[in-house]
Amino acid sequence: MTRTNVALLGFGNVGRAFVRLLSEKKALLCQRHGIGFDLRAALRSAGGVLAEAGRDSLDLAGLDREGLAAHPLFRPGLGPEAVFDGLEPGVLVECMSAHPDTGEPALSVLREAMARGWHVVTASKGPLAADLCGLRRQARTKGVVFGFSGATGAALPAADVGLRSLAGADVTSVQGILNGTTNFVLTRMGEGLDYAGALSEAQRLGIAEPDPGRDVGGWDSAVKLLILSNLFFDECRKLGDVAVEGISAATASEARRAAGRGKKLKLLARADRATGRTGLRVGPEALDARHPLYGVDGAEKGVSFATDTMGVVTVVGGRSDPRGAAAAMLKDIILAYGDRKT
Amino acid sequence: MTRTNVALLGFGNVGRAFVRLLSEKKALLCQRHGIGFDLRAALRSAGGVLAEAGRDSLDLAGLDREGLAAHPLFRPGLGPEAVFDGLEPGVLVECMSAHPDTGEPALSVLREAMARGWHVVTASKGPLAADLCGLRRQARTKGVVFGFSGATGAALPAADVGLRSLAGADVTSVQGILNGTTNFVLTRMGEGLDYAGALSEAQRLGIAEPDPGRDVGGWDSAVKLLILSNLFFDECRKLGDVAVEGISAATASEARRAAGRGKKLKLLARADRATGRTGLRVGPEALDARHPLYGVDGAEKGVSFATDTMGVVTVVGGRSDPRGAAAAMLKDIILAYGDRKT
Repeated sequence: MTRTNVALLGFGNVGRAFVRLLSEKKALLCQRHGIGFDLRAALRSAGGVLAEAGRDSLDLAGLDREGLAAHPLFRPGLGPEAVFDGLEPGVLVECMSAHPDTGEPALSVLREAMARGWHVVTASKGPLAADLCGLRRQARTKGVVFGFSGATGAALPAADVGLRSLAGADVTSVQGILNGTTNFVLTRMGEGLDYAGALSEAQRLGIAEPDPGRDVGGWDSAVKLLILSNLFFDECRKLGDVAVEGISAATASEARRAAGRGKKLKLLARADRATGRTGLRVGPEALDARHPLYGVDGAEKGVSFATDTMGVVTVVGGRSDPRGAAAAMLKDIILAYGDRKT
Repeated sequence: MTRTNVALLGFGNVGRAFVRLLSEKKALLCQRHGIGFDLRAALRSAGGVLAEAGRDSLDLAGLDREGLAAHPLFRPGLGPEAVFDGLEPGVLVECMSAHPDTGEPALSVLREAMARGWHVVTASKGPLAADLCGLRRQARTKGVVFGFSGATGAALPAADVGLRSLAGADVTSVQGILNGTTNFVLTRMGEGLDYAGALSEAQRLGIAEPDPGRDVGGWDSAVKLLILSNLFFDECRKLGDVAVEGISAATASEARRAAGRGKKLKLLARADRATGRTGLRVGPEALDARHPLYGVDGAEKGVSFATDTMGVVTVVGGRSDPRGAAAAMLKDIILAYGDRKT
């Protein structure tokens, strides 16, 4: 069985969920897929642990950030360079925090990792929004895997379905409900709540972040739309190319009006190839019961593809919590290493 | 660019749709995926055409069965053996008619093709119901591709999503609306039509076959469930292991009653892993609005997976006509040859 080094960058919720998942799925990875992963490095901003060749691989499942800092191998200030210098290339699992526009510092780390021959999987939208095209080009040139399912809807297989399940078809439009927070708020407003009430309920349930600005402003949806659209349509557009309208207190009456007419107001992200350049737009739209995303309620997400040869294919659901994002990254790794049983 | 021989067995609706699609997608296959296919053989039961190495590849797009028989290279009685003997192994596209239980004659041809080193893609459920396990084992042993998306829901990516998009997750249950005819009839009965009226409407629209026995009896759903379940759960169960209940005239009042309670009656196919062996069942069930397949109406199909790490993922839609089945087979071929751009 092949054994592969795994290095984790970022020890937040997603990074720790990945560590737990890797430990939990050890037997399955070995038996079903014939691959063995050795966790050899885990970094957070303050430093990290590194188990060089010859040492046992790391068992960090169950540790929190403080636990990591208290690990006997923890070295303050340990950075990605030390990992690249100290280990044979394997899979880099990138779950750092990244600036939403520049993608840094994650973007530079991803580039450096690929340049050094590491496969990379990422849960960060920032680097993809900033330079998906360049990263994909670099991965092809270097012959390494570049997985980003965890960044485009977590366990919702939006990227897979669009790229793999529709291979050979031309996608003519993509429509998505790509943000759980706004979908929850809109669902509750359609049921009669006002904006502030719906939003504070979402925060109470842990669906909305304390500062929900990027979600309600439509920017989280716009970034995901940009990534998916660049991917499916092989373009290199920028966030500024997306026409974005979010939701606000004023949207509540629109949501109630839609409900009164048997419709549902959704924050719809659309990429349409109708004429020339792909039109990219995020904004509230009232969907009727025949729309494929009509039934996507609460914090759920979904994406619907119209194609030339396969009709309309819609995929809905998937956990969007840290465990879901970690599972999506693990999937990218498995697919990259080849599922021996399919 | 790699050039690969393609041999088509079966020149019915799906086979002819595949020929048209291959011709239509020639440029895309070359530019986007770097693969070139040469159609070198096409057989129907009465005989077929074969273009051996050195000859131009065949252009059969637009031909019907009579057109094939009138082709200058047509040889009456030409069978699969002549194809295997006359060509370098490539991709065998199998769209023959097959006995629903034994899978013959398609099953033997698939086995022989793999034994001779051909990759195979199939649109026939029969061979898969009879021996999916054996065929997959043979494909692994011989190192050839075995694609069967076209047989498990046409362009609905049920097999892909279950195998690829959920890689690394444990699927705990699969629920599907896997038959368009019964779903159409049930939808119309929920709207007030009686069984005979709904069925004859389905036949008028070309959704139901003139003899809809296998559909309304639940057997088409049961075969698809068996294939998907054996695939996802890595089992070798038989059709007799599925508890099957179909729909009938008596179902109409049940459908209306469900509609009166805000529910929808669906012919649900379920594989549950709850305890020990997977429980396999097809039968009418009233779904409420929160069920992920509630919105799958008319002739549409859908499948929903419950998993341990990715939550519930549901995929809906996809053309189920010959063009959809042909597109699904082409997808399997593209994925097998590796999408160079992903």
